Amino acid sequence: MSAGSPAIGIDIGGTKIAAGLVGPDGRVSRHLRHATAGHDPAAVLDTVASLIAELGADAPEATVGVGAAGWMDPDGGSVLFSPHLAWRNEPLRTKLEAATGRRVLLSNDADAAGWAEYRFGAARGHSHVVCLTLGTGIGGAIVVDGQLQRGRFGVGSEFGHQTIVPGGQRCACGNRGCWEQYASGNALAREGRSLMAVHSPVAFALREAARNDPHLVTGELVTALAADGDPACRELIIEAGQWLGRGLANLAAVLDPGIFVIGGGLGAAVPLLVETAEVTYRENLSGRGYRPFAEVARAELGADAGLVGAADLARRALAD
Amino acid sequence: MSAGSPAIGIDIGGTKIAAGLVGPDGRVSRHLRHATAGHDPAAVLDTVASLIAELGADAPEATVGVGAAGWMDPDGGSVLFSPHLAWRNEPLRTKLEAATGRRVLLSNDADAAGWAEYRFGAARGHSHVVCLTLGTGIGGAIVVDGQLQRGRFGVGSEFGHQTIVPGGQRCACGNRGCWEQYASGNALAREGRSLMAVHSPVAFALREAARNDPHLVTGELVTALAADGDPACRELIIEAGQWLGRGLANLAAVLDPGIFVIGGGLGAAVPLLVETAEVTYRENLSGRGYRPFAEVARAELGADAGLVGAADLARRALAD
Repeated sequence: MSAGSPAIGIDIGGTKIAAGLVGPDGRVSRHLRHATAGHDPAAVLDTVASLIAELGADAPEATVGVGAAGWMDPDGGSVLFSPHLAWRNEPLRTKLEAATGRRVLLSNDADAAGWAEYRFGAARGHSHVVCLTLGTGIGGAIVVDGQLQRGRFGVGSEFGHQTIVPGGQRCACGNRGCWEQYASGNALAREGRSLMAVHSPVAFALREAARNDPHLVTGELVTALAADGDPACRELIIEAGQWLGRGLANLAAVLDPGIFVIGGGLGAAVPLLVETAEVTYRENLSGRGYRPFAEVARAELGADAGLVGAADLARRALAD
Repeated sequence: MSAGSPAIGIDIGGTKIAAGLVGPDGRVSRHLRHATAGHDPAAVLDTVASLIAELGADAPEATVGVGAAGWMDPDGGSVLFSPHLAWRNEPLRTKLEAATGRRVLLSNDADAAGWAEYRFGAARGHSHVVCLTLGTGIGGAIVVDGQLQRGRFGVGSEFGHQTIVPGGQRCACGNRGCWEQYASGNALAREGRSLMAVHSPVAFALREAARNDPHLVTGELVTALAADGDPACRELIIEAGQWLGRGLANLAAVLDPGIFVIGGGLGAAVPLLVETAEVTYRENLSGRGYRPFAEVARAELGADAGLVGAADLARRALAD
């Protein structure tokens, strides 16, 4: 294939698989969606293969980029570990190449989304980029001088698993106090439930919307109520935004980027979150006053970022 | 000059200036030392110029690399900010070039030390390197694929100023809870004083060595007593080592290096510190069991690392 051809991008999430035919300018010409059979790797493989067959019917030479939550080996061939998808040392590329007859590259989903923002979105033209994908957790990507930085073993930029509160909230990774337990959809859900549990009068709207059932308090619900102006849920967003900003200041101490791009479903949901994060970042940056601030920007590519980035990374890596 | 010629390396510390003539193999053929007139920039400049004149008498073409605590602009021309040396936007290169007639490159001292460990020391041959210089604080350096990573504005890898304890100990940077307040010589001194202040019976040796005067409790004293086997001071080292290890785990979440190199005066003082840090790092690494551990190694170049690295960086950047 030539670098001007479309590539197929696949974004395997915890609940759905998004797929698209992606041009070299990052535009998506066809979209497909399918539910994820999270605990059945073979079923996920079949779904992905059928999406590829459908999208690639008119593009027989198109390469395939697959982004998924989890750690890929540095060659983009195997999934070392995926928290949601029951993959352990899964040779996904070999299986997909056999099933589709196409060349395949695997990427971490947050790396793919960040790469898309660098190539076609909010971070275009920047030399030092840090992207965060905020959803139930925090995904990350680092781009320096046009190169995605994945680390020695391909598992870097997992920003969400820095411990920022010693002995703090338990994280799905097994540790306590991880950043993503304070600035994510899961954090909003936990804090919303906690507010409801103490029968706080300020939680009236939340209690009503969740019919007093803690299981119905989700990050999406808190975000939606905040967007509607509910004061208590706005406070929860502000609290999460402050934690987000403190973490940005920590990342700036290490990486000193020119821009932070905040994406993902939560990043897009309410401007208040990222606005608060930027204020707190500027209040907490070590050395403030003696160094420039990085720009803090919202992502531009929305829910397509993962599949666009996965396709673009595959196109570049596998170009003849 | 040719890449095979010696270069002059200068390491400006808070209390002394070290200088040496450094061969292309990293060996130092002449050493000089001088006290730092910390609060008088003009006096520091004069001292550095005279050290250069003395070292360069037989090497008229030698370029000069200067490492100092603080932030350099990305071109290595000006000191933006130096915590100990009263420099603010100081055009040190221009002044030194005028004073010496030689080409000069400025580097952050921890960047220089880390670069030396990558080129000639413990991190030789590694693609993804994180170096820490432990002294009164924590300096840092990142080398990826043979390139020092300094960030967009040249002020990255300030690992010590990540907040790891919200609302924690006050740091000289103005923030609270910075990592270097928990895993540094300053942390050992503070904790030693605190142990003495509560009249703890376990602090007998410390109290005797410090003549019961808190001002005489320094990181060096705690380290020396620990090296002699004093149980209380060994516990202080272990505590600092645990904080060090937690911070390494955080850095691994972001940077995923193949090796951590721990240098600086404190890093070299007692093996117990780095041994403890490695154990804690392995206990706290997010995703442990599903990813390889980075090597944790002690630095090899000792007190020369800063001047060796500064000279090597200058030789490479300024080579004809």
